[in-house]
Amino acid sequence: MKTAAEYLESMQSLNPRIFLGGRQVKLMEDPTTLTVVRANARVYELAEEPQYQEVMTAVSPYTGERISRCLHIARSRDDLEKRAGMATLTSQMLGTCNYRCVGADTLNALAGITWEMDRDLGTDYHQRFVNHLKYLQENDLACSGGVTDPKGDRTKRPGQQEDPDVYVHVTEQRSDGIVVRGAKVSQSGAIGSHETIVIPTMGMRPGEEKFAVAFAVPNGAPGLTYISQYTPFTAERELMPDTKYLGNPLYGQRETCIMVFDNVFIPWEHVFMCGEVKYSGRLIARFAKTHRMNCGGACKVGFADLIIGATQQMAEYSGVQKAPHIVEKITDMIRISETSRACTVAAALKGREEPAGSGFFMPDDIFGNVAKLTVADGFWEIMKWAGDIGGGMAVTMPSELELENPETGEYVRKFMRAAAPAEVRLRLAKFIQNWCAGLHGAGTWHGAGSPQAQKMALYALTDLESKKKLARDLAGIKE
Amino acid sequence: MKTAAEYLESMQSLNPRIFLGGRQVKLMEDPTTLTVVRANARVYELAEEPQYQEVMTAVSPYTGERISRCLHIARSRDDLEKRAGMATLTSQMLGTCNYRCVGADTLNALAGITWEMDRDLGTDYHQRFVNHLKYLQENDLACSGGVTDPKGDRTKRPGQQEDPDVYVHVTEQRSDGIVVRGAKVSQSGAIGSHETIVIPTMGMRPGEEKFAVAFAVPNGAPGLTYISQYTPFTAERELMPDTKYLGNPLYGQRETCIMVFDNVFIPWEHVFMCGEVKYSGRLIARFAKTHRMNCGGACKVGFADLIIGATQQMAEYSGVQKAPHIVEKITDMIRISETSRACTVAAALKGREEPAGSGFFMPDDIFGNVAKLTVADGFWEIMKWAGDIGGGMAVTMPSELELENPETGEYVRKFMRAAAPAEVRLRLAKFIQNWCAGLHGAGTWHGAGSPQAQKMALYALTDLESKKKLARDLAGIKE
Amino acid sequence: MKTAAEYLESMQSLNPRIFLGGRQVKLMEDPTTLTVVRANARVYELAEEPQYQEVMTAVSPYTGERISRCLHIARSRDDLEKRAGMATLTSQMLGTCNYRCVGADTLNALAGITWEMDRDLGTDYHQRFVNHLKYLQENDLACSGGVTDPKGDRTKRPGQQEDPDVYVHVTEQRSDGIVVRGAKVSQSGAIGSHETIVIPTMGMRPGEEKFAVAFAVPNGAPGLTYISQYTPFTAERELMPDTKYLGNPLYGQRETCIMVFDNVFIPWEHVFMCGEVKYSGRLIARFAKTHRMNCGGACKVGFADLIIGATQQMAEYSGVQKAPHIVEKITDMIRISETSRACTVAAALKGREEPAGSGFFMPDDIFGNVAKLTVADGFWEIMKWAGDIGGGMAVTMPSELELENPETGEYVRKFMRAAAPAEVRLRLAKFIQNWCAGLHGAGTWHGAGSPQAQKMALYALTDLESKKKLARDLAGIKE
Amino acid sequence: MKTAAEYLESMQSLNPRIFLGGRQVKLMEDPTTLTVVRANARVYELAEEPQYQEVMTAVSPYTGERISRCLHIARSRDDLEKRAGMATLTSQMLGTCNYRCVGADTLNALAGITWEMDRDLGTDYHQRFVNHLKYLQENDLACSGGVTDPKGDRTKRPGQQEDPDVYVHVTEQRSDGIVVRGAKVSQSGAIGSHETIVIPTMGMRPGEEKFAVAFAVPNGAPGLTYISQYTPFTAERELMPDTKYLGNPLYGQRETCIMVFDNVFIPWEHVFMCGEVKYSGRLIARFAKTHRMNCGGACKVGFADLIIGATQQMAEYSGVQKAPHIVEKITDMIRISETSRACTVAAALKGREEPAGSGFFMPDDIFGNVAKLTVADGFWEIMKWAGDIGGGMAVTMPSELELENPETGEYVRKFMRAAAPAEVRLRLAKFIQNWCAGLHGAGTWHGAGSPQAQKMALYALTDLESKKKLARDLAGIKE
Repeated sequence: MKTAAEYLESMQSLNPRIFLGGRQVKLMEDPTTLTVVRANARVYELAEEPQYQEVMTAVSPYTGERISRCLHIARSRDDLEKRAGMATLTSQMLGTCNYRCVGADTLNALAGITWEMDRDLGTDYHQRFVNHLKYLQENDLACSGGVTDPKGDRTKRPGQQEDPDVYVHVTEQRSDGIVVRGAKVSQSGAIGSHETIVIPTMGMRPGEEKFAVAFAVPNGAPGLTYISQYTPFTAERELMPDTKYLGNPLYGQRETCIMVFDNVFIPWEHVFMCGEVKYSGRLIARFAKTHRMNCGGACKVGFADLIIGATQQMAEYSGVQKAPHIVEKITDMIRISETSRACTVAAALKGREEPAGSGFFMPDDIFGNVAKLTVADGFWEIMKWAGDIGGGMAVTMPSELELENPETGEYVRKFMRAAAPAEVRLRLAKFIQNWCAGLHGAGTWHGAGSPQAQKMALYALTDLESKKKLARDLAGIKE
Repeated sequence: MKTAAEYLESMQSLNPRIFLGGRQVKLMEDPTTLTVVRANARVYELAEEPQYQEVMTAVSPYTGERISRCLHIARSRDDLEKRAGMATLTSQMLGTCNYRCVGADTLNALAGITWEMDRDLGTDYHQRFVNHLKYLQENDLACSGGVTDPKGDRTKRPGQQEDPDVYVHVTEQRSDGIVVRGAKVSQSGAIGSHETIVIPTMGMRPGEEKFAVAFAVPNGAPGLTYISQYTPFTAERELMPDTKYLGNPLYGQRETCIMVFDNVFIPWEHVFMCGEVKYSGRLIARFAKTHRMNCGGACKVGFADLIIGATQQMAEYSGVQKAPHIVEKITDMIRISETSRACTVAAALKGREEPAGSGFFMPDDIFGNVAKLTVADGFWEIMKWAGDIGGGMAVTMPSELELENPETGEYVRKFMRAAAPAEVRLRLAKFIQNWCAGLHGAGTWHGAGSPQAQKMALYALTDLESKKKLARDLAGIKE
Repeated sequence: MKTAAEYLESMQSLNPRIFLGGRQVKLMEDPTTLTVVRANARVYELAEEPQYQEVMTAVSPYTGERISRCLHIARSRDDLEKRAGMATLTSQMLGTCNYRCVGADTLNALAGITWEMDRDLGTDYHQRFVNHLKYLQENDLACSGGVTDPKGDRTKRPGQQEDPDVYVHVTEQRSDGIVVRGAKVSQSGAIGSHETIVIPTMGMRPGEEKFAVAFAVPNGAPGLTYISQYTPFTAERELMPDTKYLGNPLYGQRETCIMVFDNVFIPWEHVFMCGEVKYSGRLIARFAKTHRMNCGGACKVGFADLIIGATQQMAEYSGVQKAPHIVEKITDMIRISETSRACTVAAALKGREEPAGSGFFMPDDIFGNVAKLTVADGFWEIMKWAGDIGGGMAVTMPSELELENPETGEYVRKFMRAAAPAEVRLRLAKFIQNWCAGLHGAGTWHGAGSPQAQKMALYALTDLESKKKLARDLAGIKE
Repeated sequence: MKTAAEYLESMQSLNPRIFLGGRQVKLMEDPTTLTVVRANARVYELAEEPQYQEVMTAVSPYTGERISRCLHIARSRDDLEKRAGMATLTSQMLGTCNYRCVGADTLNALAGITWEMDRDLGTDYHQRFVNHLKYLQENDLACSGGVTDPKGDRTKRPGQQEDPDVYVHVTEQRSDGIVVRGAKVSQSGAIGSHETIVIPTMGMRPGEEKFAVAFAVPNGAPGLTYISQYTPFTAERELMPDTKYLGNPLYGQRETCIMVFDNVFIPWEHVFMCGEVKYSGRLIARFAKTHRMNCGGACKVGFADLIIGATQQMAEYSGVQKAPHIVEKITDMIRISETSRACTVAAALKGREEPAGSGFFMPDDIFGNVAKLTVADGFWEIMKWAGDIGGGMAVTMPSELELENPETGEYVRKFMRAAAPAEVRLRLAKFIQNWCAGLHGAGTWHGAGSPQAQKMALYALTDLESKKKLARDLAGIKE
């Protein structure tokens, strides 16, 4: 397995075409793109630490070696639980994305679907997939995942769009591979990964074959352009002389990009679906199933741990931690967070082999959906309480740079202290600001799909007939 | 194991002193006390049905025989999950209490605490307990549990009360046993059980030894009086010529009583704690831990299944089941219910041996608490949506007796029909009325302890120090 | 104006055909129908009390005399505010419907619509209406209102129903009047009123002329049958030897009936709309506008005052009123209630003359809608907190009759006391039970229309174009 | 009255000592401090526009001239309603603070309290106040307000603090005036005002006389230092080549500062309280009363109008505005906003003269408190829905600068378009980002005091005794 240093070295040799804020930047130089690299390095580092090995690594049945869990295909409920555990742990350690998370979940979804296609259609997708997976495992490569298409006019299907590029699609099939066009938006972490695993954004229908395409693509392949998100947090990071003045000093906000495919060539050995529309819906459904448990649930539990910890710490710094209403609010944050955690645990521990006979495991879908739904609303509640206890300071604090300014330093020290010195209160307030006045509310809402999608899934997954029968029986109604 | 018929026969021979509505009633004759008996009989019946055997029964390590799970001490996570599953199943089948539920949870709490006392103090409580448990198992007896004391003046400890009887206590220790006085309130099902298992309502302190008492008492022991609850539902059941006109025809509302102990003699072999104040807090805490998963969580999931089923059915009877806002509401009910279910599943599957070395298993406490908290608020939401979709009819419907009245029957048939005949709509509306305009909202709120108690537990159980450290580390704050 | 005694006397001479629980009952003898009469009598009484005169009465511009506000057509914002104030006051005094409330709001809606029809169509509806209104005022008659039709198959319009009777309609127009058939459901108070004012349940379209009918009908007119609701509370009242043992001793639950029109003759002088479909939507919309303020908002504020008072009192009886979480919950109840009150006040004080030139006033529609929406969700919250603080006792208490039973009275006195004697705690718990375990949750939800209807109204009433423009202007977007 | 141009000119001649981001900046040059000046200029401008004159101006009873409503003391309910209307209007126009709002409310609170002190104590504060007010009115000066002290150790009273400077206080009384030390935090707009009106942060007690001080101080008085807040939004504004790329191009976020008083001399004619501890609590209470209506309620309604408008517009740009769940969410935003508006309208229209005989009017306190409480929770809900409908784009969008980049512009145009071109979607998404991923959630929560303060006020203001009596009377309980 790669060390963090080896990962960093491997990134040096890449040269992805990245744009940010209207100009081209270098991955290893721009302060914002660096946060992605740093986060990935930390994930490699965690896998090296003995106390996290159980969660961060697994033994591959393909290579027989210990590998990163980010590249492991779950084969048991225990695997699922540890996978969710990894999501919580990396969130606790990073305060942002484990950028290999979507990659892990697309790989897990592809494992089963390629197995199924080979069984049903006599294709060799699964063999290709396993070959490539072994290569990824042997080289311990960081994989991001590309899922969400721009979608253009929401009232039209992919094939009816004025510009077909708003959905990733195959423009040419050649003997050695395919050529793809389109884009993936809100893409987390492609710029700092070795590869990106791409799957369709939704189920395709007959006639939409060219949109039913899944493949792996190396970072910086010809035709790939990454257009990074740009937010106030990007600007602040650009301006700050030292990362320590930032809300999440090393790892920053969750950074995404528009990943543009402008006639990108993909050799057949990296193509895992190409036209099998019948399987495309099942592919995205399986991805959703696992991603709602991991990104929708477990990841945000890790964030909540950080926010609860920061909020309780701030209450203590301000000397108000025993006030009944403070205890009540902290408890409410815990309630939300532990409910989400319970849902992800249940999703993992009630997971099942899917497809039957494959040996691959998927979490329980209903429990994954309620994990995400609990988080979606709950995260805004948690932000609310963090802002409540963080106080006005969380949004009106001066820059920490004032502490080093001879003309204002003493004033700030004097007026920002409470039961703790101004220095730590400001530092912690900045950390809280990062959460309660930042991108995470809306980001968490949409991550792993918007709640409306989970609601539709939940309704569809529920056996209303049997519930109706229970009620009729007890009420004494004969049908 | 007893059949339902044998249980009913065994009840015939009892003659508990029951008062209801200001007068004495006979257990097997009064329409309300009969609902308790009927519910118990149904639980015996379920254990006889092959498809429920896995959930409703277990093999006793003490007798080597198949026994009711109501009398089983959990020895694995699987046991815990099935125990919770039993709670959901009986709720689905009864629409009211499995009246043996509290008994089961007090027995589970006593198993460990008596084991611990014997280990620490050299007492023989555990041996006594096991002897009695075997007797219960061999005779398949229905046990209710007595937990909640009247408490009198809430600002005073048990020993400081003007009237010591507001907490159950020992008034005399004799060579052959003890004499107890006091009462248990909101007691579910004692009138229809063979025995009641009594434990202290809270942790006692040094000086409060006489209140630290746990024991088993047979139904109808001398000195025992049962004063039943009386609600509008009791009255309606008294008046109705046929149970079919009632909201839950056979099993009714959850029926409780004040169980009065007026110098009741308990032989030593049925005494499982007597003065060991140090262990009393742990006893009630373990009871709470298991009861919050079962009664606080899993049981109400079963109720929710019924309510969701009835509401969806009513939407169909009214022809509005496809309206987007109806689908949204049904989905919200499912979300709440499945979140609760996930919490109970997680509580069971993350259960642990407790005390270590005992072989007995307890559910995870945090997950049990969030199961209950999810239910507490959620149940009111579910009632709200049931009332919404049930419509005004759920609270303004005429009596079904009108259908048999030649002067009004045609009118009611004409005006109460929609996409289904008036008969089934009225029957189902009555069933919904039973839930959304009845005792279950407040009952569910307080069952297994009021939410304020769960919040206090949740705050106490949470390791805030480690969360604070995670936040400080990421924010770059050195302590 | 009538005294309460005169009202009671006038009821003696009526003989409406009422069915309840499957049998015919006499208005002045049945314990349930009597609650309606008693409530009406109390409303007459309030009008006699000097401190309430300002709110309960007005001076009629038609008769020049002081009249009941229940028969007054609002002609100013002050009138609207006092009308809402009357709703709050009667709720505080009765704990149930002012059964003249719907009548008052239908009269207010008819005043304007008849004025408008006469102006536009040259009809004489308004003159008829004023004549009849003067008669009602001069004789101080109690009027209920009939609005909600059974509706049958919800997917079909009135004229497409298999059975046309599921919407009230005209079957015959004669020289002296019309004949109507159909029914009004969830009808509050018709049995104890002198007259009922009937309006269409919704806006009718061309071709549905026979359903666009509004009229006044005296209690007990030939062809009228009242089929009363029947609930557990009806049964309890039938059984109890003394009303003092009931949750709302004198006035009970809100009692409704199905009011059946089986070819009822209405003379022309009592017909206020007959076929003018174009005006029927406006008629029901104006009714909704005023009724959402009064019934949807102000009335429930009065209920909330009672529930808050009872809950705070119970906290004191139990000695827990200073616990921070109790204060928090009481405060939350107040917050909900005062928010609703503010919305109704705003609805009244921003009311407008409508139709312009008529001199009649209607409340602000948006504010009336949010009053109702605040109440709908808020009332369930209030019930939740009442159940929380009321405690298990609110749903598991024994009958107060036990206090008079020599065998159980002492037990109950001993075990039900806390910081107050058992007698008052039980009495108050019964009162709380009436609210938190009764019909009011679902009843309040649907009263004045279901929240879904208010949401649709709110969306339709909002000027989204101007809000979009504000946003575009500030964002710097040119259209 | 000043024109916007005259205001800008007057700012040119000031030279306040402002620090921002660790360095000193010039008011009229720094892009962030300029937003405050621009916002103030716009408020002057609005007063010049005929269609806003009614709301933005009033006629002074002191000068007989038309003046800015920001300097008017309310003398009627109509004044109160227009004052709240001004708050909504300026929020709609600015999307940030009317920075003269706190100044207006401190002046209104001082009007009554100085009148009262003169009446009771024979002081001449009111005469001084009126003289100064006339000066402000005649010169149409912009006044900010300074209220919130740093507070240091929250467990100690002002006089017990280690460093007395954490509360503003008098250090010296001279014949010509007083010298004050301390600071006001979260101060909105002082840097761009002509004067700041300072009042105590809370009620002071005997022995705390030096902290009971109120006064006016001109911008840039010797000893005054302003340390500005610094957030990611500050950084983004510093970096952007054109304001059009920012979320609120001209007026930005709400900008505050720590306003430091380092031995600032205040002449007696500008001192309006000095040691009268008995009146200090009433002063802050009256300020709170008016500020909760204006800042707590009405202002945020204006923000909500903008957010609702932007969200609906974005739904249309994306082509999803007819989806039922979108309509439901927009309606929910409207519900919250209109409920808040209703509360402020009720607060204004039920306002009262206070103190009696003074001629000054204050809004209703309970309704002002519920206005703020509705907003506090509601604003997070509104942000949630804005983020939902704004979509992932609201937090992952690239910089608009990409549109001008030849290498990425076409990609962004292609992939960011939907039912509207990429340009307007990006612009609007940036506007939405400004709300749903910014400072306004926590800022709105704490503005006009944290909700916990409003809850305490609400509980204290409620007459629980009369509610208890209503309940007891109806339940038949005699005391």
